[in-house]
Amino acid sequence: MSETTEKIWDVLMVGAGPASLSAAIYTTREDLSTVLYEKGVIGGLAATTDWVDNYPGFAKGVSGLELAEQLEQQAVRFGAKIEFGEVLNIKDSGKYKTVSTTDGDIKAKAVLISTGSDYNKLGIPGEAEFYGKGVHYCATCDGAFYRDKKLVVVGGGNSAVQEAIFLTKFATHIDLLVRGDKFRASDVLIKELDKFPQIKVHMNTTTDKIVGGDDGKVNKVVGTDKKSGKKVEFDTNGVFVFIGLLPNTGFLKNTGIEFDEIGLIKTDENLETNISGVFCAGDVRSGATMQIASAIGEGATSALNIRKYLESL
Amino acid sequence: MSETTEKIWDVLMVGAGPASLSAAIYTTREDLSTVLYEKGVIGGLAATTDWVDNYPGFAKGVSGLELAEQLEQQAVRFGAKIEFGEVLNIKDSGKYKTVSTTDGDIKAKAVLISTGSDYNKLGIPGEAEFYGKGVHYCATCDGAFYRDKKLVVVGGGNSAVQEAIFLTKFATHIDLLVRGDKFRASDVLIKELDKFPQIKVHMNTTTDKIVGGDDGKVNKVVGTDKKSGKKVEFDTNGVFVFIGLLPNTGFLKNTGIEFDEIGLIKTDENLETNISGVFCAGDVRSGATMQIASAIGEGATSALNIRKYLESL
Repeated sequence: MSETTEKIWDVLMVGAGPASLSAAIYTTREDLSTVLYEKGVIGGLAATTDWVDNYPGFAKGVSGLELAEQLEQQAVRFGAKIEFGEVLNIKDSGKYKTVSTTDGDIKAKAVLISTGSDYNKLGIPGEAEFYGKGVHYCATCDGAFYRDKKLVVVGGGNSAVQEAIFLTKFATHIDLLVRGDKFRASDVLIKELDKFPQIKVHMNTTTDKIVGGDDGKVNKVVGTDKKSGKKVEFDTNGVFVFIGLLPNTGFLKNTGIEFDEIGLIKTDENLETNISGVFCAGDVRSGATMQIASAIGEGATSALNIRKYLESL
Repeated sequence: MSETTEKIWDVLMVGAGPASLSAAIYTTREDLSTVLYEKGVIGGLAATTDWVDNYPGFAKGVSGLELAEQLEQQAVRFGAKIEFGEVLNIKDSGKYKTVSTTDGDIKAKAVLISTGSDYNKLGIPGEAEFYGKGVHYCATCDGAFYRDKKLVVVGGGNSAVQEAIFLTKFATHIDLLVRGDKFRASDVLIKELDKFPQIKVHMNTTTDKIVGGDDGKVNKVVGTDKKSGKKVEFDTNGVFVFIGLLPNTGFLKNTGIEFDEIGLIKTDENLETNISGVFCAGDVRSGATMQIASAIGEGATSALNIRKYLESL
């Protein structure tokens, strides 16, 4: 066994998005040896966000890529090690956890899970092309860009209805496309819709294609009225899709970690999961807001709690 | 009654430190009318911090003043209103809260308390002069600046002992000055001290003066051995003071808001206090870490919960 695999890290972090980069800035400054495993992009969802207007500290906003690079450089500056590889399982081995990765087994006294969640996608033409520039998944993040514009909102659950209502603060007209013949949202929310005549609901309507104009901006959504089988078109300046979250938790299925009803990881007020020494922060945590600022804050808080945990060993 | 006092704000925030500036960036972007009341410095403790090395997003660090200015400009850019004045009381008036201020009564549907906490000070010569540049109150923030240096730590409670032990990660020698004839720290922690021969404990020792050299840097702490009455001196590169926190909660004494055992405000997982519609974030909240990143995160999270609360009205 090589020296590397024999080493016991103070902390292993699963994922290298804002939550764990923030946590790593703290743990490394406190001289805790810290390694992050990332299977995709350093910076997570933030790195793939065109423009971040609401991360506090940048008065004029900052590009997602620039923010991700700053976070990475800051964590590395203090000594964090970032490895590209996938975490497959976490086992409690008494005095430490054994973390199985595509690089072999790694030992760490504490583990931070910060793998984030992805937004479910429609998987239709135009969706990837206009991602962040006409196609959005977070009204809090991007709603304000659509003041006095028209929008299409896709989805039939609580989020879709709630966010459509929220988006009326900005948009003058909203077409709400619901695939099924009824909402999955709560009755209270559905009733609330009556107060917003600027939201037009289209039941039994699939969303098939997002189309841009010559100016490179979204200008139309094409769908199908399932009852008539006819093509339907909606002029719009942008599309918000709310068809659920996909927490990145597949690797945890044999760990005994507890999840909430939507599959996010439960923690106590110290951000510790039901397994002692395994912490969780960011968008994969139950109560997550899908906001960079919240993830950053939880990362810092989890780091201080990890330090306390390590001192108690 | 003037138009101003008749207006019902969506949110009134008490304090304009990182937590509420972060919250205000979110609430104003969501078109919630937002006013902040500040009786001291915009940016709170952050604004008076010389250099912030660990706020995520600034790879090389950022001056506290610059960070505070960015936060203020960002919140104001989206429409936050910052007023200088002191909040005196908060009353539930049914559909809104009545907030008494030095400017008169203000109405708001929701209130965010983010007044922070101050570190208790020794109140001795040299302390203010070297604040942030040799005199510190947060080991997590500033400990890393003292690698291979000598330190004086002041205090006899859990924080003082715990942070003295933590600072041995960096400092080669620590003089721990305890005013009384015994520690107020827990027995477990006191026992732990035996493992750190680099910490020398001085009981019955007051801390009287912090002295700098010709280079403008702290080089000595002068105290008194209370038993002998003799002056004692400690050569040092810096001083960490851990003699408690002072939460800024005086104005809440007639509100019925619940506090924890150290006087910080209790909240549920939505950062809501025991009074519906009154939220709390940052260093005045029970569980606070005294870290800018955590305060920023809690500010963002509280804003999303305030939005939900307002939608439920």
